[in-house]
Amino acid sequence: MIGLSSYAGVMEKSVNSTEEQQPCSLVNTCSNKQESGKKQMPKPVGGFVLVHAGAGYHSESKAKEYKHVCKRACQRAVDQLKAGALAVEAVAAALVELEDSPFTNAGLGSNLNLSGEIECDASIMDGKSLHYGAVGAISGIKNPVLVANRLLTEAQRGKLSAGRIPPCFLVGRGAHEWAVRHGIPPCPSEKMATKFSLSAYKRNKRKMELAEKMDPGQNQRKRRRKSSETENGSGCLDTVGAIVVDLEGNVAAAVSSGGLAMKHPGRVGQAAHYGCGCWAENGCNMNPYSTAVSTSGCGEHLIRTMLARECSAAMQAEDAHQALLEAMQNKFIGSPFLSSEDRVLGGVIVLRCGRCAEGPPPPPESIQGILVEFLWSHTTESMCVGYMSAQDSKAKKMKGPKMNWRGSLEA
Amino acid sequence: MIGLSSYAGVMEKSVNSTEEQQPCSLVNTCSNKQESGKKQMPKPVGGFVLVHAGAGYHSESKAKEYKHVCKRACQRAVDQLKAGALAVEAVAAALVELEDSPFTNAGLGSNLNLSGEIECDASIMDGKSLHYGAVGAISGIKNPVLVANRLLTEAQRGKLSAGRIPPCFLVGRGAHEWAVRHGIPPCPSEKMATKFSLSAYKRNKRKMELAEKMDPGQNQRKRRRKSSETENGSGCLDTVGAIVVDLEGNVAAAVSSGGLAMKHPGRVGQAAHYGCGCWAENGCNMNPYSTAVSTSGCGEHLIRTMLARECSAAMQAEDAHQALLEAMQNKFIGSPFLSSEDRVLGGVIVLRCGRCAEGPPPPPESIQGILVEFLWSHTTESMCVGYMSAQDSKAKKMKGPKMNWRGSLEA
Repeated sequence: MIGLSSYAGVMEKSVNSTEEQQPCSLVNTCSNKQESGKKQMPKPVGGFVLVHAGAGYHSESKAKEYKHVCKRACQRAVDQLKAGALAVEAVAAALVELEDSPFTNAGLGSNLNLSGEIECDASIMDGKSLHYGAVGAISGIKNPVLVANRLLTEAQRGKLSAGRIPPCFLVGRGAHEWAVRHGIPPCPSEKMATKFSLSAYKRNKRKMELAEKMDPGQNQRKRRRKSSETENGSGCLDTVGAIVVDLEGNVAAAVSSGGLAMKHPGRVGQAAHYGCGCWAENGCNMNPYSTAVSTSGCGEHLIRTMLARECSAAMQAEDAHQALLEAMQNKFIGSPFLSSEDRVLGGVIVLRCGRCAEGPPPPPESIQGILVEFLWSHTTESMCVGYMSAQDSKAKKMKGPKMNWRGSLEA
Repeated sequence: MIGLSSYAGVMEKSVNSTEEQQPCSLVNTCSNKQESGKKQMPKPVGGFVLVHAGAGYHSESKAKEYKHVCKRACQRAVDQLKAGALAVEAVAAALVELEDSPFTNAGLGSNLNLSGEIECDASIMDGKSLHYGAVGAISGIKNPVLVANRLLTEAQRGKLSAGRIPPCFLVGRGAHEWAVRHGIPPCPSEKMATKFSLSAYKRNKRKMELAEKMDPGQNQRKRRRKSSETENGSGCLDTVGAIVVDLEGNVAAAVSSGGLAMKHPGRVGQAAHYGCGCWAENGCNMNPYSTAVSTSGCGEHLIRTMLARECSAAMQAEDAHQALLEAMQNKFIGSPFLSSEDRVLGGVIVLRCGRCAEGPPPPPESIQGILVEFLWSHTTESMCVGYMSAQDSKAKKMKGPKMNWRGSLEA
């Protein structure tokens, strides 16, 4: 069985899968009420953010930078929430910070593709309106998430002239042109690459050439299988993402990625795929919980299993932690869609919020009694996450422990 | 309530939603056994194909051409099936025929985008391997489905050199380059456009300019709403697709589209979106039925509701016809994801097959006793479909009746 690390969190600590799940109260006006044994909230607050800087392999030096950027991203989202922003605005702000880091594989410093170019994917979903925006294989834009967000807001405005339906997904050159026409500044390609991404490109290119030189034979199938056993490429999976719940209880999710290193030009990964990179859905009559999910890992695995949407759907179960473990096991690691894969690489961050079951029911418009639970889980060696609530003075950050590829699932 | 036409078919006729669903027996070796009151099959056969030339508005003149091309597409798939091809090969063959028609909005003769260029989307899914391939906003390729199919087969071969994961979705220039490198011939753009598509472009452009000239005011929101009430654009929704079950009971689905007329360059519609344009999934322990779905209509509506996958999931219910009606009503027309839309435009073709419940169980490797049910449903004015089983001498074609936009659902 493939290894799986899973966490269910409260604000103060992260517990592993053997510990009991402890939902966390992020209410404001009911903050001085104790919920299910949770600690008392010090003052009225609103909102919570959970970010990730990717599931993959993180060297100690890079992990430190990731922790810092996760912290800054949380702070950006919380600043927005405190200023009264909706979840979708706060999640975009967090993503901009994550993309702006030269260390993450998103925006600035993204992985280079086979041709030595940077092509980014990003998407954002608003749980309130259920609108969605995405860009794929976009070049020359520092913050792809801002283009995705702009697509979302433009689509919310209704039809274009002559009854044309506004797009929710743009790719390539067309996406770049649309972005610039909508006031998002272009960024010269040479400014998008970093010393780190350029040296990684050269290293990967040499590795590829060597692999092809060592076995230029006709039996490509055999060569491919062999190479897949000696490589894992997990160092290149560090997509970034965030999920937010705002003061009103709306949820939003976003994800951004430079994609796999040495990918073919034009390849679009899960970060631009509806239902695969991120998902956000406010609660309704049928679904009592509002849920938000952002994923990271091997794009093709996350696409074929539609992991974001699957995890979101699973979150309607009573026990969120158990539901996430089961979703990761049954819908990802053990998915019939990935049965031919030798390694299934991915991670998710998840939050859900719903009304507290205990105590008298709050007035309908009130945000009293909202419980927020947040969790993350990954099959990769590590996953960097950070989280913060609007009443915290600083963000908590966390790097998942290294796990053997072959482990057992504690479910 | 928005109008909905729905059909559950047997080979000999199409019944509307008030008639009882009659699953159709397409078995070969058990063909001389009567199943649930179905007619006796004349000789051992294997396989069935259902194709569509889009849900939208079809003029009488165009509908005739559509019927012809549906017939030819069915024949192409059946020829493949008779030659022993798998479902995925047969479905690709049907799509090539549909794309090659200058009358359909796919491949040759596709809608032109805002810049007067043709950019196509296509995808294909193999229910046996559960692999998937897609291209988005690809130019200069006559048969985009062949690129999607090649991506699927390349992905099935395993990893690339140096452990790189093969792409399942390529867009734009990168997709074109990959296609040409894999032996798919480029097609000059001027050969892709037809007299019809060029004149439609000019007409649409004038209409757009007029709409913008008539109301160049600042209140863009108001202008947009107004325009959406006077236009429906449903004449431009004629995506094509096909679903197939082969001799072994494997299913496959595919879809191809030139996208909405006057779309922004780089816009990708449902035809390239995983779970939205097509879906195919062989039966397994958890899902007794093999299912295949292909959609048509307004891409953004089909994306946000993930209609192909939703319909596929619904097909595991006992009563396929009722399940499709409910899926179209609850997951599409009445979907909370489309609550802000004034018109919800789409259509689906669906097939499912499973073992016959009656009679002695056939040996596990046998294809005895497979029942095939096929259905289609649309909210648009009409939908052109054709279907054929491997023992038919010619295909049946069908254009759905015109329906009022405001009708009631008989569910």
